[in-house]
Amino acid sequence: MEQERLTQRLRVFLPLADEAIAPPTPNELNLPTPRIAPPTALAPWCRSDDLARAGHTYGKSFRDVVRALERRWERPPDVVVTPPDEDGVVAVLSWASEANAVVIPYGGGSSVVGGVEAPDDERPVISCDLAALRRVLQVDRSSRAALIQAGALGPDLEAQLRPHGLTLRHYPQSFEVSSLGGWIATRSGGHFATLHTRIDDFVESVRAITPAGPWETRRFPSSGAGPSPERLLLGSEGIFGVITQAWMRLQERPQFQASAVVGYASFSEGVRAARALAQSGLWPSNCRLLDAAEALVSGAGDGTNHLLLIGFESADHPVKVSLTRALELACDHGGTLIEPAKDRDADPTPNDATRQWRSSFFRAPYVRDELARLGLISETFETAVTWDRFDALVDRITATTEDVLRHVGAWPAVVTRRLTHLYPDGAAPYFTVLAPGHATGRLAQWREVKDAVIDVLEASGATVTHHHAVGRDHRRGYDLERPPLFAAQLRAAKRVVDPAGLLNPGVLIDP
Amino acid sequence: MEQERLTQRLRVFLPLADEAIAPPTPNELNLPTPRIAPPTALAPWCRSDDLARAGHTYGKSFRDVVRALERRWERPPDVVVTPPDEDGVVAVLSWASEANAVVIPYGGGSSVVGGVEAPDDERPVISCDLAALRRVLQVDRSSRAALIQAGALGPDLEAQLRPHGLTLRHYPQSFEVSSLGGWIATRSGGHFATLHTRIDDFVESVRAITPAGPWETRRFPSSGAGPSPERLLLGSEGIFGVITQAWMRLQERPQFQASAVVGYASFSEGVRAARALAQSGLWPSNCRLLDAAEALVSGAGDGTNHLLLIGFESADHPVKVSLTRALELACDHGGTLIEPAKDRDADPTPNDATRQWRSSFFRAPYVRDELARLGLISETFETAVTWDRFDALVDRITATTEDVLRHVGAWPAVVTRRLTHLYPDGAAPYFTVLAPGHATGRLAQWREVKDAVIDVLEASGATVTHHHAVGRDHRRGYDLERPPLFAAQLRAAKRVVDPAGLLNPGVLIDP
Repeated sequence: MEQERLTQRLRVFLPLADEAIAPPTPNELNLPTPRIAPPTALAPWCRSDDLARAGHTYGKSFRDVVRALERRWERPPDVVVTPPDEDGVVAVLSWASEANAVVIPYGGGSSVVGGVEAPDDERPVISCDLAALRRVLQVDRSSRAALIQAGALGPDLEAQLRPHGLTLRHYPQSFEVSSLGGWIATRSGGHFATLHTRIDDFVESVRAITPAGPWETRRFPSSGAGPSPERLLLGSEGIFGVITQAWMRLQERPQFQASAVVGYASFSEGVRAARALAQSGLWPSNCRLLDAAEALVSGAGDGTNHLLLIGFESADHPVKVSLTRALELACDHGGTLIEPAKDRDADPTPNDATRQWRSSFFRAPYVRDELARLGLISETFETAVTWDRFDALVDRITATTEDVLRHVGAWPAVVTRRLTHLYPDGAAPYFTVLAPGHATGRLAQWREVKDAVIDVLEASGATVTHHHAVGRDHRRGYDLERPPLFAAQLRAAKRVVDPAGLLNPGVLIDP
Repeated sequence: MEQERLTQRLRVFLPLADEAIAPPTPNELNLPTPRIAPPTALAPWCRSDDLARAGHTYGKSFRDVVRALERRWERPPDVVVTPPDEDGVVAVLSWASEANAVVIPYGGGSSVVGGVEAPDDERPVISCDLAALRRVLQVDRSSRAALIQAGALGPDLEAQLRPHGLTLRHYPQSFEVSSLGGWIATRSGGHFATLHTRIDDFVESVRAITPAGPWETRRFPSSGAGPSPERLLLGSEGIFGVITQAWMRLQERPQFQASAVVGYASFSEGVRAARALAQSGLWPSNCRLLDAAEALVSGAGDGTNHLLLIGFESADHPVKVSLTRALELACDHGGTLIEPAKDRDADPTPNDATRQWRSSFFRAPYVRDELARLGLISETFETAVTWDRFDALVDRITATTEDVLRHVGAWPAVVTRRLTHLYPDGAAPYFTVLAPGHATGRLAQWREVKDAVIDVLEASGATVTHHHAVGRDHRRGYDLERPPLFAAQLRAAKRVVDPAGLLNPGVLIDP
């Protein structure tokens, strides 16, 4: 029903197909014969049927959805193995080494950058699914930390923590279908719009199995002994090893919440307000700026205003005083209160726009798939840039995206913008593109947009990704932005733990 | 006068010499002839006189002070070079490569872990002093960031930022004699007791000159593209390259401040209160727990109570409400208000104990040197550990330190404890030792203490250093605690940028 309402809203702007493309059925899969079979000891954990292999061929990007809708399964893994425990992971790497097979660590499979996709490589491919490593193993109540296995998906992990009164409070958009190990491997961006925006800050220690043996850091609240070892594994996207477990810093469940929505006549006023909030030291937990089109599409607004959603939360103390000061700042920059400050003590429901936004936020990946079935180019991309370059970057990205969409005939299109994470020195803008695609050429059209966007990011001093990771799709931009000597150091560090180059070859670095 | 008062206080506990050992005079230096001379082009930046070389032989640890007082200059650098700019640094590395000389990057020379000391190596040694690279090169007001050269010392850097209304607010104890580059190279711990405790969080991008060329990251407020390159350089202690400049995140000068002092009858009650504050999400800027002896020695208290110094600051909003809640928590855990909440709006002077503590804090390194001249073993060490292990660790460290001091005849001694930095999952305890040393054997006595402490840290799951760095002195503990495969990765990463092993050999890793 929600879906239908959105489709109706979009039909005003966009030509949607009358009939959705049906998702493929199991008997439409027709994969090539697997090139390897597991050794007997590992066979009980392995599947080589078409369904398992097709399900592990892609992540969840628009490109992945379209290829599935087109019944194209490029480079499916030969075997999907689900080791029952960490020793099983060791056994899988040992088998891969003997078989000279590529290993792709697989958590929830929610990559939108080709991060779980097989390389264009002669070697057989093993998708190593961590689904069985899903338990919270230990809870340290006094340090508010827990040892959690890497394969645990968001809801499962939170359900196991709830009896302890604790929560990780990491809610990426992929929450329902992504795993702790995946978050760590990709430096996932989460719930908090300011301060602790990424999973990085919540990793106390981490353990991975590499082809050269276990790699594990110690539990310290902080250490100044040399470069942080965790930080080399954070964002390593599976190239060093299979992350098996981590000690994570947790939170008490929030008892106090307050939120409000402020409207702006111009997007740049909203940006000024967001910057003031990011630099205020108030550290709102939520602070998302939606442009008017994004507000309309998500149902958070009616499209007349750009909206700034502001929220505070605490397990310890009332947060109304912080919200009050935040609203002063927000209104000083030209804002008008659209929905008044709401304190959960008085009324447990969040603001309408906030609730609508949150619901839309978590539904978005499913909606995007539906829109792809209706013939649209339907995708998002994101970046981060310092404030001094912010306005020029957003204008240039918007103009470039629209120009290329026009040029490739994917027009009229809707390009919306929002700010997902804020920092004192900059912010992470996020773009959604909805455009009518060619029936058979949507991926080529999208490729042109994406290539042009990467060029603009590079030219504008913006990163190729704030929280979508690099994978295979962002390699060109990543290669441009990272220090060349650091790339060489990464390669050298990989050779130490994975001399045969079994793990995710081509992700982040070339062999 | 302040110094005299302290000496009087200490004479109650400790046998101090009547006469202080005189510091060495320039004509007492008698260094071996330098093994290399600079090429003509570099000669104007170079000094090989005894004074320059002796001044760059050691850092500022107790061991360094005693060796200087004993007129021992072990392995002085052959040449001290002060390149005028970054090109000069390139020229120095190029000369070192040709001369097969070791290069030791030198900022303020405040290392307390042997971090600027020459290795036991056949090669000639060049101390590369960054003093001339001391300018703030650019200020980006909208992003509140500045590009600062690495050789700038604390006061100089702050003086250059002041006209812009900005401050780095990084105040390690060595503030007056340490440099931005040194802070970055050692992951220095700073002003803030919670939240942004380390320089790490304020580094937006960093540039270093390595023997293989420049190594520079881009300015992003945050990026999720691969492992953070900055984090490999942060804490690298000069083994990869000479840090020449960095874009740093700055703050507005605080307009609102509020502080109070709470007393505890038992240290462990104070620890409980500190933990509650660390987990409250209030993020006090100051939150230092001093045990009664530390309070007495520093003059912050009279020795009857353990003291918790709590302070908040903000450039944007009043902080009294945060202090009020913090005091509720502090008193819930058995505390008594010793000095009432003070709001700078009403009265600009800080609390007596806080003021006394701050003054003592910055004076401490000088005092320590004076006490060494009076014959004491006078040194500090620190660590960090999760809360579940905290009490046992502090008890064991205290007992071990006292046992060894007794065993080596350095008794009666004073061992004081404080907490310097707090995290939701643990804290950084800091220990000060004052003990009567043998006239000629103080360093051997101290070595026994330090060795025993490192063993306790390792056995108790505590890090070898929270913010003093590794250098040469902490190598044994560091080698035990870091992941072995990570050590191999560090070595591989070093070979990429410094294949001849010119830079700080033996610091962090063996060649």
